[in-house]
Amino acid sequence: MPAPADLPLDQVRTLLAVVDEGTFDAAAAALHVTPSAVSQRVKALEQRTGRVLLLRTKPVRPTESGAVLVRLARQVARLERDAYAELGLSGAGEPTRVSVAVNADSLATWFLGALTRVPREHALCFELRREDEDHTAALLREGVVMAAVTSSPDPVPGCTVRYLGRMRYLPCAAPDFAARHLDGPPAETLAGAPVVLFDRRDDFQDGFARRLGHRDAGPARHYVPTSEGFVDAVAAGLGWGMVPEPQAGPLLGAGRLVDFAPDRSVDVPLYWQQWKLDSPALATVAEAVASAAAEALRR
Amino acid sequence: MPAPADLPLDQVRTLLAVVDEGTFDAAAAALHVTPSAVSQRVKALEQRTGRVLLLRTKPVRPTESGAVLVRLARQVARLERDAYAELGLSGAGEPTRVSVAVNADSLATWFLGALTRVPREHALCFELRREDEDHTAALLREGVVMAAVTSSPDPVPGCTVRYLGRMRYLPCAAPDFAARHLDGPPAETLAGAPVVLFDRRDDFQDGFARRLGHRDAGPARHYVPTSEGFVDAVAAGLGWGMVPEPQAGPLLGAGRLVDFAPDRSVDVPLYWQQWKLDSPALATVAEAVASAAAEALRR
Repeated sequence: MPAPADLPLDQVRTLLAVVDEGTFDAAAAALHVTPSAVSQRVKALEQRTGRVLLLRTKPVRPTESGAVLVRLARQVARLERDAYAELGLSGAGEPTRVSVAVNADSLATWFLGALTRVPREHALCFELRREDEDHTAALLREGVVMAAVTSSPDPVPGCTVRYLGRMRYLPCAAPDFAARHLDGPPAETLAGAPVVLFDRRDDFQDGFARRLGHRDAGPARHYVPTSEGFVDAVAAGLGWGMVPEPQAGPLLGAGRLVDFAPDRSVDVPLYWQQWKLDSPALATVAEAVASAAAEALRR
Repeated sequence: MPAPADLPLDQVRTLLAVVDEGTFDAAAAALHVTPSAVSQRVKALEQRTGRVLLLRTKPVRPTESGAVLVRLARQVARLERDAYAELGLSGAGEPTRVSVAVNADSLATWFLGALTRVPREHALCFELRREDEDHTAALLREGVVMAAVTSSPDPVPGCTVRYLGRMRYLPCAAPDFAARHLDGPPAETLAGAPVVLFDRRDDFQDGFARRLGHRDAGPARHYVPTSEGFVDAVAAGLGWGMVPEPQAGPLLGAGRLVDFAPDRSVDVPLYWQQWKLDSPALATVAEAVASAAAEALRR
């Protein structure tokens, strides 16, 4: 690749717009140019770098090389915005955007509270991406986001890591479901009981069953791909599931859930990873996230 | 393509497993064969049909031709399961799975209640996919799901359509946000106020702003990609947003939200589309969905 200084930034920005908007047409609309101009700029950048930068899927996805340039484009934009803000120019232009990947359970429990702690005078705009905590780091690596709540303590290249705390998960079921399917030690009954999973990638319930000596959770599986829906499905008696402590608490208190293996909770450590950038906007968000996490999560 | 009777169903089932599990390795684990066996079967099927069937992305995605075979595989599996159930054999084998694409707002409000109405003796397993109501029909077309809650009344080929009702959306904001940003007729103030969107594809707020005579909603945009998080973000005062009536109701009553343009609510009609298959499992779910929708939605 040519030296970064040689890369035409308008082409790099166009690449970013295509990835953000998902299609060449949408990027063209956002940039107020024609779709063929967008297509030409991306092609020119691909010729210049000698790499395929985009997979022409729907939505468009960056290749590994494309992701490097997308990250560059976002970092340049971040630095430009911060410089404008320091010069007192941000009021006139675009608001300062902070993009963060968050796992669904954090988003459903403590994360939005963190964002409301960011002082209003910063006038930040948040772009949240919901992703499994094992996969948020990938979005950071691809340059899709500038920070992530992740279960990985290993820093993504170019990023710093900060420990947030542990989210505790309790093995829960509705009382009548437990009476019907879990009447006996879970080490014996669990594999025969219906289970609720988040999606096909969710192996959390299987891992729990394996630790009790089963080969897996049972074959009767419901998939409910929202955090709140997952808890609702467990409380409605569709199956058992590992429920985050902040969501389980009120339902256990109200007798709508039972913890069928109280000594078997599972803790998932969470970390904050962010670009190593001297950005006041990002630093403010990081502070708010760390302080909200300190209250909501276990140490 | 050869006649359907010529297609080796084990290869078609392998294709389905790869699409469902997302990678060749995961499909191999699910099928209890080696990854190279999976790869060979897919290649054999691609040679036989003379088409590329899979995009080797992560996760793997079916091409247009691949989607046709995925749908075939799912329909065959559905018919097999129903036949087994009729023969009284289902208890021994796999549970009967019903896959449905649902928009996030339906999932957050009335849809799970529908599933709990399905009599327990059917022993169905639900696989829900969360998707924008404008895009759920695409999942039906691709064969990813066998039914969908969608905003489209135009039947997907091979599907039936049934009207469910209208979801009403109210233009809402937190009271202090409204006092700060919306002090005046919305037709004048709206474009200058921060707004909450679901994700980059969400043009619902922009559409509302355009109907009030603005070019778009304002440039200060927060993206919060869960239904519950979206409502929480509006109630926390991050921005205004179009909130589904079932979620807005209690918050309006408690004074945590205000409807800043009470005569300007927007109704979105919802439809149930499902495969034209004589499947008792699917018919039972359709009945439960229609009756829950009749109570929760406007006619």
